[in-house]
Amino acid sequence: MNPLVNEALEFAVSLLPEAGRIALASFRRPLAVEDKRSKGRYDPVTQTDRAIEAYLRAAILARYPDHGIVGEELGTQAGSSDWSWIIDPIDGTRAFISGVPAWGTLMGIRAQGRPLAGLVHQPYLEETFAGTAESGWFERRGERRPLQSRQDARLADAILYCTHPSMFQTPTEREAFERVASSVRLSRFGGDCYSYCLLALGLVDLVVESDLQAYDIQPLIPIIHGAGGVVSGPRGEDASNGGFVVAAANPTLHAQVLALLAPD
Amino acid sequence: MNPLVNEALEFAVSLLPEAGRIALASFRRPLAVEDKRSKGRYDPVTQTDRAIEAYLRAAILARYPDHGIVGEELGTQAGSSDWSWIIDPIDGTRAFISGVPAWGTLMGIRAQGRPLAGLVHQPYLEETFAGTAESGWFERRGERRPLQSRQDARLADAILYCTHPSMFQTPTEREAFERVASSVRLSRFGGDCYSYCLLALGLVDLVVESDLQAYDIQPLIPIIHGAGGVVSGPRGEDASNGGFVVAAANPTLHAQVLALLAPD
Repeated sequence: MNPLVNEALEFAVSLLPEAGRIALASFRRPLAVEDKRSKGRYDPVTQTDRAIEAYLRAAILARYPDHGIVGEELGTQAGSSDWSWIIDPIDGTRAFISGVPAWGTLMGIRAQGRPLAGLVHQPYLEETFAGTAESGWFERRGERRPLQSRQDARLADAILYCTHPSMFQTPTEREAFERVASSVRLSRFGGDCYSYCLLALGLVDLVVESDLQAYDIQPLIPIIHGAGGVVSGPRGEDASNGGFVVAAANPTLHAQVLALLAPD
Repeated sequence: MNPLVNEALEFAVSLLPEAGRIALASFRRPLAVEDKRSKGRYDPVTQTDRAIEAYLRAAILARYPDHGIVGEELGTQAGSSDWSWIIDPIDGTRAFISGVPAWGTLMGIRAQGRPLAGLVHQPYLEETFAGTAESGWFERRGERRPLQSRQDARLADAILYCTHPSMFQTPTEREAFERVASSVRLSRFGGDCYSYCLLALGLVDLVVESDLQAYDIQPLIPIIHGAGGVVSGPRGEDASNGGFVVAAANPTLHAQVLALLAPD
């Protein structure tokens, strides 16, 4: 692996304790929730989202002044190199405001036109998930172990997660999801970014979602790939831009789902 | 409060560390999952469910030989007194086998024909929720604080949880749930017993579910009441037998939901 990627990933890891401290200072405490109202739907954001992103942006630019930054809350800032960082300070704000520890702070590192490394930090659970395209690790309370998705999972025995059925906004998308949901062993809602982490841990086999933004999925792609999983759009295309996404624990399962999505 | 209830509750608390140890020994580890297949649907159970229940039953009967026990996995054993214990060793087995820490060990204490005390223990989060009809507490890492549900929550700003839409098995139930879901600020799926705990913590305002068993809900009733919430069937009747259940953070919100469920 490119040593610069590894160095940037370890630098990102060094920012997590402070990001987690900011998040936990308001988790499960009364907090002001604003409604960003995207596409006419409730879209909550808090001061905490903005405070975490501001901290991460300042730290990254101090260390890498030539890198670009794309953040969910504070926008895009171009860099003079081809490196950029993708930040979702709290992915799963709805989980956050409900007290459910399925949210996470996401950071992705992009260069040469693709996601090279990604991180998810869940400070209430004291968990960090990291990946490059080649490998990944899970850390809890100082102990690191490799990520490994379930290589023998097949459609009929798969566990499927999706954050909420309202993600599928057209009848075509809803029917496509239903075809997958009715073919697996167990289908559950909820989870946000944490479902992809469970896939990388070998506990969940499929995540099928829609209406994702680029910052929702880019930091997760290297984690999924690093664990041995596959993630793409519905026709196998690059998932970096978000939209409808299929993450699977292994290539065979991924192919089974893509076949279901395009039955003709 | 009846001092015997308090004594029994503290005895139940003393059993949680060992119950948690048994659960965590197999959580997120490869485990044999059987399918109990209830009503033709996938209904997973593990050795861990049975091992926890066997431990709790033996300990309770050693201390209270005249008490009855109703357990999810190992059946009903009548006692010679009117006291009985309701045990769900792992409520949320689907969450458990997916690696999601929304499952819990439930214990309820019943006498004089009603639930008098209840406990939920989530060992991965190191959390315990306890309640009697009059009060409740939350404990994490040795720190206890009172439970208090959101007394000012109203329908339009409520956060609603429900484990899975498939709980509603008739069109009437599905429509009733949809009326509630479309009237609140935020509606989410997932959660299992943990949603009721978040209600008692003042983070979630409504849990509307169906197809519950008595052991799913009885241990939770004193926790909800002890936090200042209300729980009942769809017409305000006792929820002890399970079925369709409405839990609300306060009496006004509860009345708003009951009015929505029976619009005529």
